Amino acid sequence: MNDLVVAIDLGGTQVRAALCDRHGKILNRARADTRASEGPEAVFSRIAATVRQVVSDWSSVRAIGYGSPGPLDSKRGIILGALNLPGLSNFPMKARLENEFHIPAFIGHDAKVAALAEHRYGAGRGIDHMIFITISTGVGGGIIANREVFLGWRGFAGEVGHQTLEPRGPLCTCGNHGDLESLASGSAIERDARDALRVGRASQLRGMTQDDPNQVTGAMVTRAARDGDALALELLERAGMYIGMGMANLLQILDTQLFVLGGSVAANAWDLIYPSMLAELDKRAMPSMRPGVRIVQAQLGGDVVLLGAAALAINGADSNA
Amino acid sequence: MNDLVVAIDLGGTQVRAALCDRHGKILNRARADTRASEGPEAVFSRIAATVRQVVSDWSSVRAIGYGSPGPLDSKRGIILGALNLPGLSNFPMKARLENEFHIPAFIGHDAKVAALAEHRYGAGRGIDHMIFITISTGVGGGIIANREVFLGWRGFAGEVGHQTLEPRGPLCTCGNHGDLESLASGSAIERDARDALRVGRASQLRGMTQDDPNQVTGAMVTRAARDGDALALELLERAGMYIGMGMANLLQILDTQLFVLGGSVAANAWDLIYPSMLAELDKRAMPSMRPGVRIVQAQLGGDVVLLGAAALAINGADSNA
Repeated sequence: MNDLVVAIDLGGTQVRAALCDRHGKILNRARADTRASEGPEAVFSRIAATVRQVVSDWSSVRAIGYGSPGPLDSKRGIILGALNLPGLSNFPMKARLENEFHIPAFIGHDAKVAALAEHRYGAGRGIDHMIFITISTGVGGGIIANREVFLGWRGFAGEVGHQTLEPRGPLCTCGNHGDLESLASGSAIERDARDALRVGRASQLRGMTQDDPNQVTGAMVTRAARDGDALALELLERAGMYIGMGMANLLQILDTQLFVLGGSVAANAWDLIYPSMLAELDKRAMPSMRPGVRIVQAQLGGDVVLLGAAALAINGADSNA
Repeated sequence: MNDLVVAIDLGGTQVRAALCDRHGKILNRARADTRASEGPEAVFSRIAATVRQVVSDWSSVRAIGYGSPGPLDSKRGIILGALNLPGLSNFPMKARLENEFHIPAFIGHDAKVAALAEHRYGAGRGIDHMIFITISTGVGGGIIANREVFLGWRGFAGEVGHQTLEPRGPLCTCGNHGDLESLASGSAIERDARDALRVGRASQLRGMTQDDPNQVTGAMVTRAARDGDALALELLERAGMYIGMGMANLLQILDTQLFVLGGSVAANAWDLIYPSMLAELDKRAMPSMRPGVRIVQAQLGGDVVLLGAAALAINGADSNA
């Protein structure tokens, strides 16, 4: 039966491939190191080899789906260039995959295919309007509107982490100041913890790092907070507050019915960020819009981009058919 | 030829009706006072009478379109209640119009039908993705995505004026603090001018109001700014900055290609807000997303809601056909 797809998740560290059925079940999987420094052709060869490892019978495979960090042009299928994939700039990934494997290929931004995965197979099943927010090193997102990924003009929509919330706030990697990513990402929490230690704040984090602020990680902050450390609790509460503020803005603009939160911060510190997040959303949302809107954790964990790439391939193959 | 529509624009002060062709040409128009204090039945009677004034031959009329301030349920056609339309709460406007005139009626929020009007007949003709922002007493908006109004879950999407930009900023009528409306609307500019006069700032506005801050209007601020008044220039520059900041957030989230700005502030003070608005957008927008995005003034002026109601009727009748 010609009803399977190949999914590819290309990250800065690893390339992963899977053979999936149309219900998001992974039948076979493989991985390799990305080694982006070896250049685009070497990376593409490893992608192709990893794909071949998961497929024994190509006659059952309808399409290939692919997800990686942006910016990328999902409409034309071109990787425009990502910070952690050096060399892969203006790389025609869709065309290269189609030439290599002779079946249709569909290309998506990792956060947006993750949103699609949570919609098709995870926390957003059956929902018409949903926003996925991933909070880890950065803050990314994907918008589901009328059951499909909302792409906007060039396919770049959903950069929910770069909305300004504190105009004079910290510098973000994108060049903006005081956007959600600069205030509530894992990196922001680490930065604020280090800064607090440097100005002399008392905290268990001192003992955990032999008093070297540079050694602080987000995981340590979460651990210290669970131990009742006041600084760590305050940092996570503040991150939660800004996430809630960003969610209120998104609700106002998009009238969504469900927020799905993923990424390491949401996965590991959910109970620590949730109360301030909810309080801020309640405080800022328009009274006519808040009722009925739900906030839940993502369900698909580390396979979310892989499953999103599978869903993208199924979507694409279905609409081609 | 059965190709005309009736458009209704119900505001707090006036109800206006027009007979329009499918190109947005107004063939006949009438108006009456709203007198909302007399209750919903009296208002509805005046709407019906105003509609009858513009139609002589009902056989040529396909549908009725209606726009008024929100919140309203455009999907079910119910006015949920608006601050300046007391008594009109949970009023089934669509059903009442259809019972009265025996043709299909379509109901929309004024800012969203205005967005549709600018898309069909104004500054956004031929554009796939556009955001309309109206800056007058408040700040409202409407999102056009893939050439149609983006409604979201319940039809409430597009409340671009209630995004938080200064978490500890002024109180908004919606209950939030420091949202775009509280920082950059005509009312916000007036409030800031009055506050500045009360704390002793020098300004021509003192002479224009016999030194009574309560007499300051937005129009006076614009006039003083054109005369080179430093306070007035500063207030409009700051409003422009916040509008640019809000536009950057919207661009990040929605990947739009065109911003269309209407309302009295954009119409009367365009040159005074434009430089700071553009500078802030350039400063905050992601480098990958800013290129090619245009910002223009609305074109339809005071008829924008009426023409949007006409477009809504044409849209609705076309998709029913």
